[in-house]
Amino acid sequence: MTQAINTQTKAAFQALKCKECGAEYELQASHVCELCFGPLEVAYDYSALRRSVTRESIQAGPNSMWRYRQFLPVNSENPIDVGTGMTPLVRSQRLARRLGLNKLYIKNDAVNMPTLSFKDRVVSVALTRARELGFTTVSCASTGNLANSTAAIAAHAGLDCCVFIPADLEAGKVLGSLIYSPTLMAVKGNYDQVNRLCSEVANTHGWGFVNINLRPYYSEGSKTLGFEVAEQLGWQLPDHIVAPLASGSLFTKIYKGFNEFVEAGLVEGKPVKFSGAQAEGCSPIAQAYKEGRDFIKPVKPNTIAKSIAIGNPADGVYAVEIAKKTGGSIEAVTDAEIIEGIKLLAETEGIFTETAGGTTIAVLKKLVEAGKIDPDETTVVYITGNGLKTQEAVHGYIGEPLTIEAKLDSFEQALERSRTLERLEWQQVLV
Amino acid sequence: MTQAINTQTKAAFQALKCKECGAEYELQASHVCELCFGPLEVAYDYSALRRSVTRESIQAGPNSMWRYRQFLPVNSENPIDVGTGMTPLVRSQRLARRLGLNKLYIKNDAVNMPTLSFKDRVVSVALTRARELGFTTVSCASTGNLANSTAAIAAHAGLDCCVFIPADLEAGKVLGSLIYSPTLMAVKGNYDQVNRLCSEVANTHGWGFVNINLRPYYSEGSKTLGFEVAEQLGWQLPDHIVAPLASGSLFTKIYKGFNEFVEAGLVEGKPVKFSGAQAEGCSPIAQAYKEGRDFIKPVKPNTIAKSIAIGNPADGVYAVEIAKKTGGSIEAVTDAEIIEGIKLLAETEGIFTETAGGTTIAVLKKLVEAGKIDPDETTVVYITGNGLKTQEAVHGYIGEPLTIEAKLDSFEQALERSRTLERLEWQQVLV
Repeated sequence: MTQAINTQTKAAFQALKCKECGAEYELQASHVCELCFGPLEVAYDYSALRRSVTRESIQAGPNSMWRYRQFLPVNSENPIDVGTGMTPLVRSQRLARRLGLNKLYIKNDAVNMPTLSFKDRVVSVALTRARELGFTTVSCASTGNLANSTAAIAAHAGLDCCVFIPADLEAGKVLGSLIYSPTLMAVKGNYDQVNRLCSEVANTHGWGFVNINLRPYYSEGSKTLGFEVAEQLGWQLPDHIVAPLASGSLFTKIYKGFNEFVEAGLVEGKPVKFSGAQAEGCSPIAQAYKEGRDFIKPVKPNTIAKSIAIGNPADGVYAVEIAKKTGGSIEAVTDAEIIEGIKLLAETEGIFTETAGGTTIAVLKKLVEAGKIDPDETTVVYITGNGLKTQEAVHGYIGEPLTIEAKLDSFEQALERSRTLERLEWQQVLV
Repeated sequence: MTQAINTQTKAAFQALKCKECGAEYELQASHVCELCFGPLEVAYDYSALRRSVTRESIQAGPNSMWRYRQFLPVNSENPIDVGTGMTPLVRSQRLARRLGLNKLYIKNDAVNMPTLSFKDRVVSVALTRARELGFTTVSCASTGNLANSTAAIAAHAGLDCCVFIPADLEAGKVLGSLIYSPTLMAVKGNYDQVNRLCSEVANTHGWGFVNINLRPYYSEGSKTLGFEVAEQLGWQLPDHIVAPLASGSLFTKIYKGFNEFVEAGLVEGKPVKFSGAQAEGCSPIAQAYKEGRDFIKPVKPNTIAKSIAIGNPADGVYAVEIAKKTGGSIEAVTDAEIIEGIKLLAETEGIFTETAGGTTIAVLKKLVEAGKIDPDETTVVYITGNGLKTQEAVHGYIGEPLTIEAKLDSFEQALERSRTLERLEWQQVLV
């Protein structure tokens, strides 16, 4: 164990620190404490941040997540910035009314640059750090979105890339990696098996695995989803957030992001409830929360929400802890509810999200119905990926086009039929 | 013919004006001059804009296209703002090197909010204006992206929506409309037939067709692609732009946008070359340009670039005029070159675009090879839509995943095989 020393620059990140025993390590590519096997996390000099960062200095930065560079674990003055982040925070009107909420906001990473999921944030940090640490090949174990993002940003940065996915992923996610020409390994098995294989490869090939040996740096990228929401709310924290849970990392890092903004004097501290969303077909974190356990029992995933189907979630216990201590909740929903969630968000707000987002909207609805979200709370729901990547999930649930001839009477007949059908549906509702 | 009067607000838009004869009309839902059948365009009071708009006032506005509200034809203080626009302008490194350019930028509307194409800009304006004019049902004739956008933003705004597309569109574009629950009419015919049908419907149903009776307002939204590039280049105009040509409207409005910024004193005036891109399978504008004609001969489209497959382009002659007078060029490329263009952009920059973007990149390459773009010109290439919507186009051209067991030796064997293959490919290249 060596005290971290960072003499090259004045960056505020200082060491890797074990989340369990507090042991400190140099800022290398490692993610597990040698003493207690706890996960390592990046530690910062917050007093330095308080002195050097202001709202104005952030606003004068780029229109991307890199405006928060001083809160991220990179030395480089020129990080890999492809315009990732600063996605819209949309004030919801119609979804809010439908649910009976007065102050609902949607943070929409379904339009994140370049690959339409929040993973572009974590990968931007991981690959910038990988380059600083001298890696020339980068890799990941992925449920799809991470592979898309790693392949794309590696292409942009000119790094060699080999990504690993479960072999049964959605077509859009497979093609959404292949297009960038990485080496793509489709593993016959679920994500947890992919992840175990990658841990072995990381030990033998000297590659930078963004979510294994680079995980402490990588995961810090998710803090920007906290920072941006605080800035976009006018330098205020919300009252309640709802986010999807896969490994649990995103959830813990939004929490860390809010706290760092308070610590740095950028926003007023206040209680924020953290609620998490899982699919019933893979809900080890929701189960632990429900049963009051402080440990996770791994499960074998079986859900359409493949991007969050992690049966043995690395940060699950921390997610449970945060939900409990903030007065939030963790809920799971069925695949049918997930599809309804996707449709509800599309029909009311014009945002098409993938299954993870459907899960989050369905859980938001469930929490409101259970009285666990006050109508007047400023609530932010995190949409983390785009529906065009999981088109299979909604096939057969969204109707069909009305096929017509290019003639006015053919159109009029089709319109009349569809209106009659709508009236009939309404009558059925009324009966 | 009546002089337009706009007494309600101090908005700078004053009248609809015929592009051909200059006749002025009230700011209603109409798009054709009653005197000469020329297209109508929105006219502004530029001296008022010069007095009221500054770089600072724009920067203090929202982080969306609505920061340029005073240059857009709406009265509302609360336009339909879902966070559309302010997409990244990426400084290209690897594509630029590959092509031998020194100052290449990519304006990436493939991540535009909410539906991943530049159409979200024009629809945001059209639906805001539709609401002001009292329409409750909105509609469009579309090659796919416009239908996605109209359906999504109508859902957000709570407007009834009926969209028309050719029946043979890509699956992603059909689903990308249906998900928002509009009435979707799939017309057996090409876009030009769809468009003719819609012109008839517009006359009989009293609907707001964004690209027919609302076209003068709608098309103004594309100016924001000019405004944003100028602002993102540090309040400067580029030397050369390359954009796709479908109806030709986008091209003419980027031009108008640059000129308005000069007129309003926000940037220095300078020559900007305008080059346009078409697919050979539908290149009526490129043909007119090549043959020195000042009229368009309509063609029957046959190309994979369906989103720009307009055989009878409404603004084609104006596009030719602008390319000529600015010293730009208009080129067409084959479907094979379009696929190569999609792959080239993905592999070098990590940006996955649809066929229209592939067309634009392929034309960019062609222009460089022909010596029509100077390596030191500040060149901006417009990417207008996302590749996830036209996945069919690249199927069979992007390789396959390597399927392996979840075991280290299975991975090692696959890796060795892929490296051997790569070496063989290189040897073939060297022979």
